[in-house]
Amino acid sequence: MNEISLLCKILPRLKQRDEIAVGPGDDCAAIDMGDNYLLAAVDQLIGGVHYISETTPAAAAGAKLLKRNLSDIAAMGGVPLYALVTVASSRKEEEWFMGFYDGLELEAEKWNVSICGGDLSGLPAGGTSEVTTLTILGKTAKNHLCLRSGAKPGYLLFCTGCFGNSLNSGHHLDFVPRLKEGEFLAGKYTTAMMDVSDGLLLDACRMATASAVGIELWTECIPLRGGATLEQALTDGEDYELILAVSPDNVPDLKRNWPFPDTPLSEIGFFTSSRPGQVFDRDGNELNKGTYKGYEHFRD
Amino acid sequence: MNEISLLCKILPRLKQRDEIAVGPGDDCAAIDMGDNYLLAAVDQLIGGVHYISETTPAAAAGAKLLKRNLSDIAAMGGVPLYALVTVASSRKEEEWFMGFYDGLELEAEKWNVSICGGDLSGLPAGGTSEVTTLTILGKTAKNHLCLRSGAKPGYLLFCTGCFGNSLNSGHHLDFVPRLKEGEFLAGKYTTAMMDVSDGLLLDACRMATASAVGIELWTECIPLRGGATLEQALTDGEDYELILAVSPDNVPDLKRNWPFPDTPLSEIGFFTSSRPGQVFDRDGNELNKGTYKGYEHFRD
Repeated sequence: MNEISLLCKILPRLKQRDEIAVGPGDDCAAIDMGDNYLLAAVDQLIGGVHYISETTPAAAAGAKLLKRNLSDIAAMGGVPLYALVTVASSRKEEEWFMGFYDGLELEAEKWNVSICGGDLSGLPAGGTSEVTTLTILGKTAKNHLCLRSGAKPGYLLFCTGCFGNSLNSGHHLDFVPRLKEGEFLAGKYTTAMMDVSDGLLLDACRMATASAVGIELWTECIPLRGGATLEQALTDGEDYELILAVSPDNVPDLKRNWPFPDTPLSEIGFFTSSRPGQVFDRDGNELNKGTYKGYEHFRD
Repeated sequence: MNEISLLCKILPRLKQRDEIAVGPGDDCAAIDMGDNYLLAAVDQLIGGVHYISETTPAAAAGAKLLKRNLSDIAAMGGVPLYALVTVASSRKEEEWFMGFYDGLELEAEKWNVSICGGDLSGLPAGGTSEVTTLTILGKTAKNHLCLRSGAKPGYLLFCTGCFGNSLNSGHHLDFVPRLKEGEFLAGKYTTAMMDVSDGLLLDACRMATASAVGIELWTECIPLRGGATLEQALTDGEDYELILAVSPDNVPDLKRNWPFPDTPLSEIGFFTSSRPGQVFDRDGNELNKGTYKGYEHFRD
């Protein structure tokens, strides 16, 4: 049993109301509110799974919980607005909780996000230190919505930032969610975008599957985070970068107008009509089978 | 350290955007959407804390997770619409997950709620079997919003249903959230309502505190669930009933028009201008100090 095969069984059973334009399976759900879409997503951050319980400052864990979710809003071209937070913890020290919420609130204020609800509970000792979750709500203009399913053959694959070695470099804690970049790109330069949190290869494969296209990935063009190998860049996870599909017509304007000198924007492949759901290199080797395996929080 | 004192420190630090009409601390947050309010709340259900991991059917746990949250929407006089669900579990059997989501989805379809997002993660073995959370989104007409803070001196205290012995009777799993009752009451008969999940006494005390009034509780009028003592009715928790404040002018109409023959509606006290934040009996004994202690998930 793994997360992906389980979700393949569960998700089709969930009935969606008519006003739900995008249901489970993308970075956020999108709910038609008339003038715009309400975006909603939830993510977990678990001690011992997503950070090292003993050594990670509580404030860094709190900030990371929010930033993971902001990355999902960024991928939909949205603006974050509200958050609801749960903490189930076996810790007894008030300092940890105060630190966690301080880090969370500081990050929330940076992005003008209001933490408007939550729940606290104890956990029996002996297992994980805590399970925390955050539900993010945001909005996006109807013509800004960026889905995983919007890539078309002939479109170019772009990415922001660098990949790999997120854990050792500290990137998994100190990254900046690509909200500004996502808002700049959405609607104007792309309508197909997602955030990369489970490794470039697995997430690219998800985009290829959702769009029913193949991806030729130019592995030599993938920007490596300091100290990362290509394999790490493909599979480490926790990059929190964006990948997007850009029509060839938009490529010159996008390169000329990119207004974020501190955020690399790289062309790393293109979408094909052949081999739908597959990611392969220039030599035609299928990358998402065999050698490389994507990151999965929910392992066998 | 306990949940209440911790929240007293954390909640005032959380900055709220202007459109948030009700922030953390009530049953739901209420966000001004122009024509109506968007309601949002989150709650957790933890194996070994809120149900017995070994013996509770997975479907019953899934249904309970949703129903706890529906009870919060009921307390605001709202209609539930969407849910986002997380599961962090150390279990390996696919059957448990399928059963959990089946129970959840079956309950969701009863109320026309769409599970539009979620996240699954593993947990290290040795602690709790799982931590599950659900964020509920709903809506309510602006004149239907029912807050804890709306009780006034001279108003009568009413409750739905019975109290106590929820665990042994199975009520904590098989209860029906009071959505129909809440919608009937909201705006017309009351503007001050809350759900009772942590014990009648603690939750009545919360309402008294939020409204800056006292409550004279007629303990002999409290309907006892089969097998419950008064003390259990006051402190057991997990009743998922509504308490509400009703103006004396509305009492005759409310009693005459109550359309739910299967749901007891009882008059169990009244609100006073003296002793704000206190709950006391007919003899003036303060109930929320000393003998009786409310239920708390997050103990010292």
